Amino acid sequence: MTIKDARTPASTQNSVDGQSAEAGKSIGWHKAYIEGSRPDLRVPVRQVHLTNGQSVTLYDTSGPYTDPLVDTDVRRGLPPLRENWIVGRGDTEEYAGRPVRPEDDGIKHTSPRGGLRNLDAVFPGRPRQPRRGRDGKAVTQLAYARRGEITPEMEFVALRENVSPEVVREEIAAGRAVLPANVNHPEIEPMIIGKRFLVKVNANIGNSAVTSSIEEEVEKMTWATRWGADTVMDLSTGRNIHTTREWVLRNSPVPIGTVPLYQALEKVDGKAEELTWEIYKDTVIEQAEQGVDYMTVHAGVRLAYVPLTANRKTGIVSRGGSIMAAWCLAHHKESFLYENFEELCEILAAYDVTYSLGDGLRPGSIADANDEAQFAELRTLGELNRIAKRFDVQTMIEGPGHVPMHKIKENIDLQQEICEEAPFYTLGPLTTDVAPAYDHITSGIGAAMIAWWGTAMLCYVTPKEHLGLPNRDDVKTGVITYKIAAHAADLAKGHPGAQEWDDALSDARFEFRWEDQFNLALDPDTAREFHDETLPAEPAKTAHFCSMCGPKFCSMKISQDIRREHGGSQAEIEQGMAQKSKEFAAAGNRVYLPIAD
Amino acid sequence: MTIKDARTPASTQNSVDGQSAEAGKSIGWHKAYIEGSRPDLRVPVRQVHLTNGQSVTLYDTSGPYTDPLVDTDVRRGLPPLRENWIVGRGDTEEYAGRPVRPEDDGIKHTSPRGGLRNLDAVFPGRPRQPRRGRDGKAVTQLAYARRGEITPEMEFVALRENVSPEVVREEIAAGRAVLPANVNHPEIEPMIIGKRFLVKVNANIGNSAVTSSIEEEVEKMTWATRWGADTVMDLSTGRNIHTTREWVLRNSPVPIGTVPLYQALEKVDGKAEELTWEIYKDTVIEQAEQGVDYMTVHAGVRLAYVPLTANRKTGIVSRGGSIMAAWCLAHHKESFLYENFEELCEILAAYDVTYSLGDGLRPGSIADANDEAQFAELRTLGELNRIAKRFDVQTMIEGPGHVPMHKIKENIDLQQEICEEAPFYTLGPLTTDVAPAYDHITSGIGAAMIAWWGTAMLCYVTPKEHLGLPNRDDVKTGVITYKIAAHAADLAKGHPGAQEWDDALSDARFEFRWEDQFNLALDPDTAREFHDETLPAEPAKTAHFCSMCGPKFCSMKISQDIRREHGGSQAEIEQGMAQKSKEFAAAGNRVYLPIAD
Repeated sequence: MTIKDARTPASTQNSVDGQSAEAGKSIGWHKAYIEGSRPDLRVPVRQVHLTNGQSVTLYDTSGPYTDPLVDTDVRRGLPPLRENWIVGRGDTEEYAGRPVRPEDDGIKHTSPRGGLRNLDAVFPGRPRQPRRGRDGKAVTQLAYARRGEITPEMEFVALRENVSPEVVREEIAAGRAVLPANVNHPEIEPMIIGKRFLVKVNANIGNSAVTSSIEEEVEKMTWATRWGADTVMDLSTGRNIHTTREWVLRNSPVPIGTVPLYQALEKVDGKAEELTWEIYKDTVIEQAEQGVDYMTVHAGVRLAYVPLTANRKTGIVSRGGSIMAAWCLAHHKESFLYENFEELCEILAAYDVTYSLGDGLRPGSIADANDEAQFAELRTLGELNRIAKRFDVQTMIEGPGHVPMHKIKENIDLQQEICEEAPFYTLGPLTTDVAPAYDHITSGIGAAMIAWWGTAMLCYVTPKEHLGLPNRDDVKTGVITYKIAAHAADLAKGHPGAQEWDDALSDARFEFRWEDQFNLALDPDTAREFHDETLPAEPAKTAHFCSMCGPKFCSMKISQDIRREHGGSQAEIEQGMAQKSKEFAAAGNRVYLPIAD
Repeated sequence: MTIKDARTPASTQNSVDGQSAEAGKSIGWHKAYIEGSRPDLRVPVRQVHLTNGQSVTLYDTSGPYTDPLVDTDVRRGLPPLRENWIVGRGDTEEYAGRPVRPEDDGIKHTSPRGGLRNLDAVFPGRPRQPRRGRDGKAVTQLAYARRGEITPEMEFVALRENVSPEVVREEIAAGRAVLPANVNHPEIEPMIIGKRFLVKVNANIGNSAVTSSIEEEVEKMTWATRWGADTVMDLSTGRNIHTTREWVLRNSPVPIGTVPLYQALEKVDGKAEELTWEIYKDTVIEQAEQGVDYMTVHAGVRLAYVPLTANRKTGIVSRGGSIMAAWCLAHHKESFLYENFEELCEILAAYDVTYSLGDGLRPGSIADANDEAQFAELRTLGELNRIAKRFDVQTMIEGPGHVPMHKIKENIDLQQEICEEAPFYTLGPLTTDVAPAYDHITSGIGAAMIAWWGTAMLCYVTPKEHLGLPNRDDVKTGVITYKIAAHAADLAKGHPGAQEWDDALSDARFEFRWEDQFNLALDPDTAREFHDETLPAEPAKTAHFCSMCGPKFCSMKISQDIRREHGGSQAEIEQGMAQKSKEFAAAGNRVYLPIAD
């Protein structure tokens, strides 16, 4: 495959460019593109250039923001990468669309809240009309895959995952993978969610009446994708909910997910019992026209299951689940989402919105894991999954939650059986409840395990979980922790090519190529910062030992003695050693704490 | 069992006391003791007093430092808790002991390093003579257990683990558990390491010529145990190594482990080839007389295994392993540790020093996991374990390292089979190599899994691993991360009583008892700090919702509706709700970001 490098002399000064301190040197990382079968099909990658002349190509979710050749402007939005592909299929039409109403932003005459907080909040980008499938046609990647068509989106993810387009088509057609790509979100760089592909990570954002603004939400989104978020869920509540979503969608290179029930609830002033199918349906259409790529729908919370949660330690902990449970109880009726599910399928099929069937009855504590309420809902999600596929709607299934390690595997095994291998999308699970402020770790453990066993996407958890509102650092920590879980799972699944990354970093470590270790790291900035904290930057970066074995007996030297004993080319290593030893002497002895040994 | 509370009016102001803001209220946590069969047998616990009047008893490793009634002084050392027990057995004798030499502290006439850096470094505490078993008798807990004796140490850990003393004796007698307790370290509060007991965590400290002083090492030790370290390894190198160890031992409430090879190497100026059995043996006796409770011995690194590492990606990454490999190659001889293992057993048996048989050939990268070199050494460790038991020496086995998730279970299964269920003590393992600066997390994932499957103790990894010297915050982060892994494993193993802690915290969460959530947390300080960051402290602590379901639809309210529908007592909950709702209204709406849903 041909990879085109986006570097220019200018780019070496670019802040998002990983060029190392010494400008001019060609080491560091850069945005590059894998070119596909057509000029407008260019798959972004992160190209890491090593000091030994080799380079490593890594998956890149950061979008045009890290391409020094693209000049981005949040007020204009990202270029509509997929527009020609969508129009070219000729199966969609533009139409006037639903008029945007003040209440879409939570503003009412009766509301004491007043109007938009920032006057220019309405998105100023190019005017657009919504698009949908002609005469009720399903315009979904699932429909195309089933017809045997390989779309540009499928080719894009095939190049991204380094598999054949046919494998992508097969997995989508079988319902084992989803490619969330609303026809009204042409800005995205297509990605795929399925157990045969790299494990994906979702990050949540969402404004809060108390602290954050529209600009902050857009910035949170680009920040999360820069560190590796594959999708972002906008869980905004309260004011400016419609407008915030518009800004996020127009600027997002990754698929955006939502929970329409949250906005519908706002429209009835938070009174669950006043929710109706009509209000919900109108909200789904509103969001589908904006371009939301996947929607969490809690249609599995049925009236009959609610009593099953009565004796739980932590009851119902899913917000959507509790809203639907409240509605069912207030009316003593079956869930309107369950009752109208087929009509909902027709709507989603017309925009290619992917279902994320919510687990409204997921456990909220170790004590409630794998109980009757949880699995009763899962069986219903299996039933809904079959219906959605009848309508050619792509579908994934959400999972828990709080689950001790010995009960995790049952979750993925049951879900895969009941839901015919539809992609599983889990929140953690948290493996213990005793560590608030560290739930990125309690859940990262469970996430790595369940992903190894087949979960396709992991919803991140930040250190602030259960305690408060995640800030910029919490978002980064959550994403990095979950990228670790996802990659550890890719390794354990033996995903082709996954180990090359670890091998490249291990080689750099063994050969004391510090700059390469930093540039290959999931978080180069922090790795470099930690290293320089203890050691004078320059001599240290040539120091010829590591924290594992200490300066006097570095593993490399021993291994060289061994190789000398048993033959094997030594010339350049010897030479390197002599030089390095001099440099190390200058740097002084014993600067690291050896680890347990 | 009777629990005596160490609280006094004064203690509520004590900095190490978890008393909540509102002084006078009896909520918070306090040091307490479980009283045993004799007045000098008092097992420390952390007693958490909840706002609902209940209390929860947690395992406590923090030593007398958190007891406001005990006045500690690092220059005097801790009271010799076990002295009467040891003397009472009448099988040990005091003797002059080996004279301390300047080179024990790395000081030589020829050395340019000069003398001790701080004049009062020599430990000023009570004069003491070393003690050892009379006429070559094994004075080990293993020997006693095999004779059917239940020692006060065994009763102490039985109360601590909430099991019968007979279970403790059986597990030790079978070699499935160790109780590291050198007769020269009477200051420790006994603890046990074995798969039938709570999973334990070790933290490493060790001075560095560059940055840290003796006082800093003592402070690092008390800091690590305060957050839950069950044992501490002193990996000091360079100057003042003997004196630093003396200060650490005299002030440590937990067993101390070392790697004698490090100090032996110092005595020959870092020239591995100049190491001899005599110098090593002398160092072991020096450390045994000081009171080191367990020693890492790399006797499994045999000459024949060294070539097996020649084609590894990262060679030998264990410092001790590389030292022994270098010695074997330099002399083309079998390891002097392997050759003299039986004599070493006799020495350890005379002080009750526990073996930690080192895995000198553990993998240093994902690529090298579970290879021939690693498992060849493991088979030798199995052979050495049988010899050690013949001499009544307690023994545990060290394990890796860097291992992808799908290869972890093989490590514990093989170790348990080959080493007759001797306690496994692993470093991580790290499940990926791509995240330097986050290796507490890459390894915490592997640690939780291998502990679930039977590993008895986990050696922590800090965020600085592979990069630099851990500071105070890194030590805390490493310990907390590993306590999470250990507790998640206790839950998965169904350890009796483990879930009570999670249940207590989940109940507090469900009932919005914020203060109780903080006081029950592994890290109350950070949990409280994160919460108060987003919310005005006081109203928020009575806010009647959580970040899972948001203010308008908190799971508790729904669950109450459900219970109302289906009967079940409601009175006090109703009442509580009314009051809480008022308070919440005052605090304003929607302050949390809901999570993925």
